[in-house]
Amino acid sequence: MQLYRLNADRVLELVEGPTPTPGRGQVLVRVKATSLNGRDMLIASGRYPFPPLPNLIQLSDAAGVIEAVGPDTTRFQVGDRVVNSFIPTWYGGPVRRLGQMYGTDIDGWLADYAVVDENVLVSMPEHLSFEEAATLPCAALTGWSAVAGVGPGDTVLVQGSGGVSLFALQLARTAGARVIATTSSEAKAERLRELGASDVVNYAETPDWGSVVRKLTDDRGVDIVVEVGGAATIPQSVEALALHGTISLVGHLGGAGQGMDLMPLSLRFATLRAVGVGSRSDLEEMNRVIARHRVRPVIDRVFPFSEALQAFEHFAHGSRFGKVVISH
Amino acid sequence: MQLYRLNADRVLELVEGPTPTPGRGQVLVRVKATSLNGRDMLIASGRYPFPPLPNLIQLSDAAGVIEAVGPDTTRFQVGDRVVNSFIPTWYGGPVRRLGQMYGTDIDGWLADYAVVDENVLVSMPEHLSFEEAATLPCAALTGWSAVAGVGPGDTVLVQGSGGVSLFALQLARTAGARVIATTSSEAKAERLRELGASDVVNYAETPDWGSVVRKLTDDRGVDIVVEVGGAATIPQSVEALALHGTISLVGHLGGAGQGMDLMPLSLRFATLRAVGVGSRSDLEEMNRVIARHRVRPVIDRVFPFSEALQAFEHFAHGSRFGKVVISH
Amino acid sequence: MQLYRLNADRVLELVEGPTPTPGRGQVLVRVKATSLNGRDMLIASGRYPFPPLPNLIQLSDAAGVIEAVGPDTTRFQVGDRVVNSFIPTWYGGPVRRLGQMYGTDIDGWLADYAVVDENVLVSMPEHLSFEEAATLPCAALTGWSAVAGVGPGDTVLVQGSGGVSLFALQLARTAGARVIATTSSEAKAERLRELGASDVVNYAETPDWGSVVRKLTDDRGVDIVVEVGGAATIPQSVEALALHGTISLVGHLGGAGQGMDLMPLSLRFATLRAVGVGSRSDLEEMNRVIARHRVRPVIDRVFPFSEALQAFEHFAHGSRFGKVVISH
Amino acid sequence: MQLYRLNADRVLELVEGPTPTPGRGQVLVRVKATSLNGRDMLIASGRYPFPPLPNLIQLSDAAGVIEAVGPDTTRFQVGDRVVNSFIPTWYGGPVRRLGQMYGTDIDGWLADYAVVDENVLVSMPEHLSFEEAATLPCAALTGWSAVAGVGPGDTVLVQGSGGVSLFALQLARTAGARVIATTSSEAKAERLRELGASDVVNYAETPDWGSVVRKLTDDRGVDIVVEVGGAATIPQSVEALALHGTISLVGHLGGAGQGMDLMPLSLRFATLRAVGVGSRSDLEEMNRVIARHRVRPVIDRVFPFSEALQAFEHFAHGSRFGKVVISH
Repeated sequence: MQLYRLNADRVLELVEGPTPTPGRGQVLVRVKATSLNGRDMLIASGRYPFPPLPNLIQLSDAAGVIEAVGPDTTRFQVGDRVVNSFIPTWYGGPVRRLGQMYGTDIDGWLADYAVVDENVLVSMPEHLSFEEAATLPCAALTGWSAVAGVGPGDTVLVQGSGGVSLFALQLARTAGARVIATTSSEAKAERLRELGASDVVNYAETPDWGSVVRKLTDDRGVDIVVEVGGAATIPQSVEALALHGTISLVGHLGGAGQGMDLMPLSLRFATLRAVGVGSRSDLEEMNRVIARHRVRPVIDRVFPFSEALQAFEHFAHGSRFGKVVISH
Repeated sequence: MQLYRLNADRVLELVEGPTPTPGRGQVLVRVKATSLNGRDMLIASGRYPFPPLPNLIQLSDAAGVIEAVGPDTTRFQVGDRVVNSFIPTWYGGPVRRLGQMYGTDIDGWLADYAVVDENVLVSMPEHLSFEEAATLPCAALTGWSAVAGVGPGDTVLVQGSGGVSLFALQLARTAGARVIATTSSEAKAERLRELGASDVVNYAETPDWGSVVRKLTDDRGVDIVVEVGGAATIPQSVEALALHGTISLVGHLGGAGQGMDLMPLSLRFATLRAVGVGSRSDLEEMNRVIARHRVRPVIDRVFPFSEALQAFEHFAHGSRFGKVVISH
Repeated sequence: MQLYRLNADRVLELVEGPTPTPGRGQVLVRVKATSLNGRDMLIASGRYPFPPLPNLIQLSDAAGVIEAVGPDTTRFQVGDRVVNSFIPTWYGGPVRRLGQMYGTDIDGWLADYAVVDENVLVSMPEHLSFEEAATLPCAALTGWSAVAGVGPGDTVLVQGSGGVSLFALQLARTAGARVIATTSSEAKAERLRELGASDVVNYAETPDWGSVVRKLTDDRGVDIVVEVGGAATIPQSVEALALHGTISLVGHLGGAGQGMDLMPLSLRFATLRAVGVGSRSDLEEMNRVIARHRVRPVIDRVFPFSEALQAFEHFAHGSRFGKVVISH
Repeated sequence: MQLYRLNADRVLELVEGPTPTPGRGQVLVRVKATSLNGRDMLIASGRYPFPPLPNLIQLSDAAGVIEAVGPDTTRFQVGDRVVNSFIPTWYGGPVRRLGQMYGTDIDGWLADYAVVDENVLVSMPEHLSFEEAATLPCAALTGWSAVAGVGPGDTVLVQGSGGVSLFALQLARTAGARVIATTSSEAKAERLRELGASDVVNYAETPDWGSVVRKLTDDRGVDIVVEVGGAATIPQSVEALALHGTISLVGHLGGAGQGMDLMPLSLRFATLRAVGVGSRSDLEEMNRVIARHRVRPVIDRVFPFSEALQAFEHFAHGSRFGKVVISH
């Protein structure tokens, strides 16, 4: 089979390897699609905080079909369509140790096939294509966890049009919440409204968008901010926040090293919560909602397997609206 | 009656005033003790973020006895011993607007008597003196909220020996949690151990106390940090924290303006929660626990009513172990 | 003013009384509409478990307009449109004592005017008429509490077309939940579908409706049953329930005295929760949702104030779809 | 190796079998102790609601030592001391399907050795003997779940001296809760007090023990009842319960078929929750607490492996105080 591994010189190289065979409790997955996340860029560029082992297959998110099952498997049958859980050994409950992660400690999914323990997989929602389903393990689940517990009386603020932000928007809408979005382009604003945003604020034209958002809520403030900008945008996010509101921290696009003033947070009795993707149990609950509400992941662009390097390039430099996917 | 008000020149002056009479739904409280908090220092020094009205009676926390009741009161009888709730109109449930606060919007408690709506009061635990009970409305309830939900499998880290830290220590112990404390003096360390700390780390001698605390938990990390240092100490607090742990932010002794790096927070999937004291319902639940477990508030020093200015002075400049109280 | 009181012979009599004047912290409400609940029938018929005081004004639920305010009121102004909280002194947090209740311990709302503490009132949703708003204090809030925490992945089962069931249906829908309803008539089934039920099962034609409902959920079962039948219908409700599901017990139409077998409950790891209406804080949260999602209470029939006795008669004997309201 | 299986005639027979070898992801456990539960009696006597497969090894709870590991195991090493999780595939989060259970669908633990997926095991608390640890999977975890979330302000009522009741008592005490116990003998009362009960009520001498317990709480009522009697004792349990309190249903000693009146439950706004043991994640959290607080399981009697039948006999007929254990 063909696979991409990141060699010791940090070059992503396409090589041939033997197709593995599933052992007890394992399944053979024909990988049909993978998707890219910011973490993959950090790994490939050597900026990931935990240095990866060399020569590992890259990418943490995949959808595929069960092609063979080993002895003693009970969760899946040949032909089942599946996606993987992002943190392989976190099944549910509180997690106290992350264990081995795809692309840094163990092989990931950018290959024709993968053999994995059946416990790392869940069924994918039936209405989705493999390309759509490949976006679920990290970005969708992070968006889901970022708005966990949101309800029909709540207001959520999402920033920009990256994968997590769009999923947070769509999933908050399934729970009846109102969603306000920020963006820098009118074209994107229109698409955000189509996805269910009640209001869109142009942060480029409105540097003090925090107080503008606050006014849109009759001065009550929003209950949850899905924060992708990090320290650079948090001051405006806090301004937009309701008393006792929560900032779900999912990214640091604006630079994490930059300092942040804590006093405004204190005056709002606010919570800043770093979102940790989620467990397999969370993934199953999210998939139920995605299936029932016919949520369709927003895909920015699909690259063929042979053009995986271009997909990385596009993710790193392009202006995106949604997820970047590789079709295997 | 005698009362202290903060005049327009920010001088705390002792004056005479008429003893008020309770109207419908009100009670007359003979104030027996008050306690000081950091907020009182900010108000008196003009550094409070919301400018106070002039000539208001100061201090937000009191204990006293019901001396008369107005018509239609149902909660108390003459002779009942009571403490006040810190946020007068927050009875329970989520709060969305703080309303008027003692010492900045409405008269506080540094007076011989006060007439208040009976709804702002709760019964004080029977085993406490008025001096002890006067420490409950802000410091104790903040400590309670900072460790809310803690259980017998959890570990809590408290910093120093201010009022909130000591209450957090004592209240976490009633729930069976392990408590680790930091301090800069061996004498204080001994007292912290007597209050129930299993371990005390000297942060003056051990600048990297975060990793020392982590080692004390077999590298799992603590579940909750009661953070009084703010941006200056948070890096060590995050180091001490378990995956998915919480930093309860209750103070900014180290300076709030200083920036804080968010990346370590993200890597721990941590939550930073600014604690907002608590509601009347929270105060009642805490008082039940204090009464049952015979918790005794730690008092640093008691000043007579006539020496209220010295009490402010001592709080602002002294090295304390516990609360500063004024006996009326 | 005119008012209806229940005299010592349990006759509801229309009498004249003085219009009261608001004292400190009180408001005068011009009552515009009231609604009836099962509890009112029990009181009027002498079957209420706690014997009422004689000669009290009846009914616990009202909507009206503030006509005058006493000294020291801060929550409302003349002209504000309000509804009352069902349990007058339960503001939020856990309740440990119910206190005095309308119609049994203190005067209720079936009168031209009422003077009450401003704390027992909340603003009514702007898009509602007084007749619609008068249904909120007990029936709507009970429906809200019965489906509390429901989300977009959950399925709720509601029984019949009483006030609580219809509110539970409508409010669960605002949170994105799927709702299955039972009824005994095709005409009502059609209206239940219009209100958002995905499926309606005729319990008269299908005595084993529990397993039919289960099949509608692909054998997973429903997450919440809003139980109005009590012991008589619980066996079917348990059959319909998912593992770890909840039965929200709101009524005993089928007879409470009848015994119930607990074993099926155990085998489902089920929870049976007797819903206790809710606090003022809950009422405010619900009203936010009703306002935002433009929920319209379903009214079966409106009677003029002069025909209050006929309203009681209709409630006690009629086949209803929604709430019975009296317009003042 | 030797093992006990329940044959098609429902006879528990001691037979020889081959010692299994661990495959990928599996471990070989040298079983050192097992414990008995009410469920085992139901299975052996043919009263279990789901008919068991014939010839399965019996018992669901064991402690042992890892004697060999198969390929790809990561959780344990040879020599590790472990206990099993009661529901093998429930790792954490909500459970929606129970899967295969020990003794009815798959082989249990009453044998010299067992080969299992490493995921069904957790480390046992270090201070315990194997006999003590063998009581954890079902009885201790049920007691833990029955008092889940209990805190230092709560009061718990436990009934009698069976395994679950004693664990609930001990574990509630680690969380600072007050515990009241019922029993029928003064000798047992003394032992219950030694385990931490503040008060013990003799239900044989005091048939209306519900109101007696209520008085012990100053008429507030208890927050949680750990109910082992079922329908027969629930009326007294409800009488003892606080408003909004919870009855954790763990048994039906008094007969499940007997009917139960729901009205008292409604008037208390009570919750009746059928406890479903717990997940592997719950077991790990509980073990942390047991280890830290040095909780020692109460063992009624230990039988050698050769006398397993006598252990069943003793459990079925004896008057016990704590758990019945088999030492392998």
